[in-house]
Amino acid sequence: MNSSQSMETVGAKKDYKDPAPAPLVNAGELGKWSLYRAVIAEFVATLLFVYVALATVIGHKRQDEAQTCGGVGALGIAWSFGGMIFVLVYCTAGVSGGHVNPAVTFGLLLALKVSLVRAVLYVVAQCLGAICGAGLVRAFHGGPNYLRYGGGANELSAGYSKGAGLAAEIVGTFVLVYTVFSATDPKRKVRDTHVPVLAPLPIGFAVFMVHLATIPVTGTGINPARSLGPAVVYNQRKAWEDHWIFWVGPLIGAAAAMVYHQLVLRAGAAKAFVSWRNSNHI
Amino acid sequence: MNSSQSMETVGAKKDYKDPAPAPLVNAGELGKWSLYRAVIAEFVATLLFVYVALATVIGHKRQDEAQTCGGVGALGIAWSFGGMIFVLVYCTAGVSGGHVNPAVTFGLLLALKVSLVRAVLYVVAQCLGAICGAGLVRAFHGGPNYLRYGGGANELSAGYSKGAGLAAEIVGTFVLVYTVFSATDPKRKVRDTHVPVLAPLPIGFAVFMVHLATIPVTGTGINPARSLGPAVVYNQRKAWEDHWIFWVGPLIGAAAAMVYHQLVLRAGAAKAFVSWRNSNHI
Amino acid sequence: MNSSQSMETVGAKKDYKDPAPAPLVNAGELGKWSLYRAVIAEFVATLLFVYVALATVIGHKRQDEAQTCGGVGALGIAWSFGGMIFVLVYCTAGVSGGHVNPAVTFGLLLALKVSLVRAVLYVVAQCLGAICGAGLVRAFHGGPNYLRYGGGANELSAGYSKGAGLAAEIVGTFVLVYTVFSATDPKRKVRDTHVPVLAPLPIGFAVFMVHLATIPVTGTGINPARSLGPAVVYNQRKAWEDHWIFWVGPLIGAAAAMVYHQLVLRAGAAKAFVSWRNSNHI
Amino acid sequence: MNSSQSMETVGAKKDYKDPAPAPLVNAGELGKWSLYRAVIAEFVATLLFVYVALATVIGHKRQDEAQTCGGVGALGIAWSFGGMIFVLVYCTAGVSGGHVNPAVTFGLLLALKVSLVRAVLYVVAQCLGAICGAGLVRAFHGGPNYLRYGGGANELSAGYSKGAGLAAEIVGTFVLVYTVFSATDPKRKVRDTHVPVLAPLPIGFAVFMVHLATIPVTGTGINPARSLGPAVVYNQRKAWEDHWIFWVGPLIGAAAAMVYHQLVLRAGAAKAFVSWRNSNHI
Repeated sequence: MNSSQSMETVGAKKDYKDPAPAPLVNAGELGKWSLYRAVIAEFVATLLFVYVALATVIGHKRQDEAQTCGGVGALGIAWSFGGMIFVLVYCTAGVSGGHVNPAVTFGLLLALKVSLVRAVLYVVAQCLGAICGAGLVRAFHGGPNYLRYGGGANELSAGYSKGAGLAAEIVGTFVLVYTVFSATDPKRKVRDTHVPVLAPLPIGFAVFMVHLATIPVTGTGINPARSLGPAVVYNQRKAWEDHWIFWVGPLIGAAAAMVYHQLVLRAGAAKAFVSWRNSNHI
Repeated sequence: MNSSQSMETVGAKKDYKDPAPAPLVNAGELGKWSLYRAVIAEFVATLLFVYVALATVIGHKRQDEAQTCGGVGALGIAWSFGGMIFVLVYCTAGVSGGHVNPAVTFGLLLALKVSLVRAVLYVVAQCLGAICGAGLVRAFHGGPNYLRYGGGANELSAGYSKGAGLAAEIVGTFVLVYTVFSATDPKRKVRDTHVPVLAPLPIGFAVFMVHLATIPVTGTGINPARSLGPAVVYNQRKAWEDHWIFWVGPLIGAAAAMVYHQLVLRAGAAKAFVSWRNSNHI
Repeated sequence: MNSSQSMETVGAKKDYKDPAPAPLVNAGELGKWSLYRAVIAEFVATLLFVYVALATVIGHKRQDEAQTCGGVGALGIAWSFGGMIFVLVYCTAGVSGGHVNPAVTFGLLLALKVSLVRAVLYVVAQCLGAICGAGLVRAFHGGPNYLRYGGGANELSAGYSKGAGLAAEIVGTFVLVYTVFSATDPKRKVRDTHVPVLAPLPIGFAVFMVHLATIPVTGTGINPARSLGPAVVYNQRKAWEDHWIFWVGPLIGAAAAMVYHQLVLRAGAAKAFVSWRNSNHI
Repeated sequence: MNSSQSMETVGAKKDYKDPAPAPLVNAGELGKWSLYRAVIAEFVATLLFVYVALATVIGHKRQDEAQTCGGVGALGIAWSFGGMIFVLVYCTAGVSGGHVNPAVTFGLLLALKVSLVRAVLYVVAQCLGAICGAGLVRAFHGGPNYLRYGGGANELSAGYSKGAGLAAEIVGTFVLVYTVFSATDPKRKVRDTHVPVLAPLPIGFAVFMVHLATIPVTGTGINPARSLGPAVVYNQRKAWEDHWIFWVGPLIGAAAAMVYHQLVLRAGAAKAFVSWRNSNHI
């Protein structure tokens, strides 16, 4: 909590090493089993994420209808989204990096932390996984029940403008992707010995927090795959009409978080300026 | 979150060491006090797990009947199962490995991480512990109350098919046992310095998550001992009729998680193939 | 989760060092400022614990009366007890050992981990702190409200026998003190590299869990100071009549946890027997 | 939990090093980019904190009105405040020290852990961030709804005296700032190997706990920026009338925590006395 010991001037020698940026296209990667294993892991993780979270939503609505306060409540739903991200990031971090979310993949692509090839494969796997996860929930609860309880699809709630919904998605995804960048910053280990690197827990909590705040507004997307899966399986007009919000919002939010973390907090812009000035004036 | 630093090709030299597989029958083990201590620890832990979780279920139903929303709710019940697993895995990991669940023991047996002798003794201890735990809840709350509130037994809820219940148990146990394998992977320590090894917390959270999702379907078993204990003490026809689901489902789910983790993620199958090809063609 | 790598035979050379047992009476300790600082820390921590937890109880009942589901619920109450123990054990572990509970102090005294002098001073400080904490809640909420909502005092609920209440306190305290012993075992650091030493978190969770299970039975004591504080400030007949349960139960539970951990899990009894046999027969 | 191994006498040689106190005015600091980056980080973090927490409050009230128990409840609101502090302290600890609260900045200033210049800039940034965060919530939910549901502003609840509200704020902030000091104590790392340095988690939990206890009394401030933001955006008479409580209370609480931690627990007073006596008598 005391920052005065961790001062650092622009241009001072660095005591940590940034990993080399990922190339946009890395053809060599395509020949490696580890890439396909990572893609499979993203598929399975997104499937499990959407299955558990949507089953919680449908199960809650079903129990709540039968008996007041009979379900796990909006709080339980927020826990199911956040808690699963904690568990799955923990489980897959070492295999695929634990994205489980196209917005996270997009943010890391912009920061040159994953190659374009990998990013595209991840997003496809995440979307397919989410569709399968939503399909399992529909199969287990039965089509009529699944439709009756809204299918866990993201829609703009009555009384909110499209602008409010979009803005809520942007800020919510900003919170998540900013936490992801903070948690995986290579500077952390060197500089902050008092802040342990518990990456998956704050990432899961960020998802939990955003759900507490925006379930009433949009049901909370902040993950285009999570929004796409039930949209496909539920397949009702309202869900498709609002669907663009759950891609545009998260991608803008992820890009904003990348800019904030890389250019402002890590002083990328200032460093580039200093480096440019030095090369011109000296 | 960035996987590009943790690439690894099939056949590359390994920077970690897998422990030797446990022999199926390890007669020498039978002479060691540490085995019996581990069996006692599994018995006590499963007893405490079932006691606390079932007392929460019965206490909730009793308070909820007296006053709307007076109990801890379905969310509190989900916490009691997941939280106790966190506490007990933490406490017994160093003594018995902290299984507290025949499905976990079965998964580790299939992965050759425990011997058959040890696995059998653990499962017997877990089942006896669960019966004693359920017995304590019945004794403390009184027989009539225990029966009136369903005894905490796992049953298929009205409106769900046997197939849905079985599938829910399979996927739920997959989530748990996959987390167990991920948390205890010997590769983690070497490769993922950014993912701290907090094993018991994500394991507890996995149990919490699955309960959020499937309490409405089956009450959530994913642990045959937890299902057996109250079935014996409650001893009603419906609980026994559905009981097979809570053995077959978890054992299939655990086996699937073992296959996924050992053969796909750890590339056991690919490695075996490469090794076979190399030995034949070179 | 895999115990087969952490085998250890009775009599094998130890790879860790037990701290020397604390002397029953340590007169030298009385001259040290660190003892008085620890006693002050126990007083303040127990005061804050009882203040926050009881304020949550009274505030919940007040809001719940005004509006259905308006308060934090029984689940919120369970969190307030468990969460405060997590925070306070974290804060005071380095100063006093973070007992905040006479039953914990008693268990550690029986295990010769604190001296008798220190234990007595701690228990006195804890009891005074709890009385002051309860007094603050009464002062902030006003006497009539404090009395109207039961003062946060522990009493046997209607429908439970004295035996059931006592047994619930014994088992609940066993869970807590067993977790305390497990979390602070000097063996952990050496043997279980896969289980990080997060001592305060599982200890706080153990308290949370036991509250989920036994709030309906006794309100949950498992801490004689927590029971004494409101009994003194509330000062109603029923609370005093049942009060013995909240001293006898926790002390028995703590002693049982000490016996289980020290004699069974750490094999103290077996080691003593082997050592006796060796010294007689060889 | 066992303090007998961590004894330490006044005057004994120290095995850790206190960082040098921050100068009151550090003109050199003003020329460094790291200061401005830290101020930006405090602005953004407080904005996100107030946005998420207030959106949770308004969203809860809106859903709860539409359907009994439809919102996340008082428990969900308490989680949103505490959980966001956990996430944001985790994210900003390495950039700004992760204060996100003028009371925390004030406490650290009194302990000479930040310079006056830095403290003033932080408080200004925190207040501006909180106003912007509250503005976002008003914009997303619409002015009429924002006003209808109280704007998330801190006010004294009916039935509590001004003295009770002030005292609740003092004790609540004491709990938070005491946890901050404990979590960032340079002694911890050296002395308490059994207490891992998980700083952000207990700090977040401290905020969660205090909200459980005092939401019914004042809505819980313990953070003057959090109180100022909605007061400005909500701008109703009652909120402004009580507003002084949410500055005076937290600042007194933070000062008391500083005195307790630095003078009592770290024995600053005793050490100063010993040092004075030694210099006079020997």
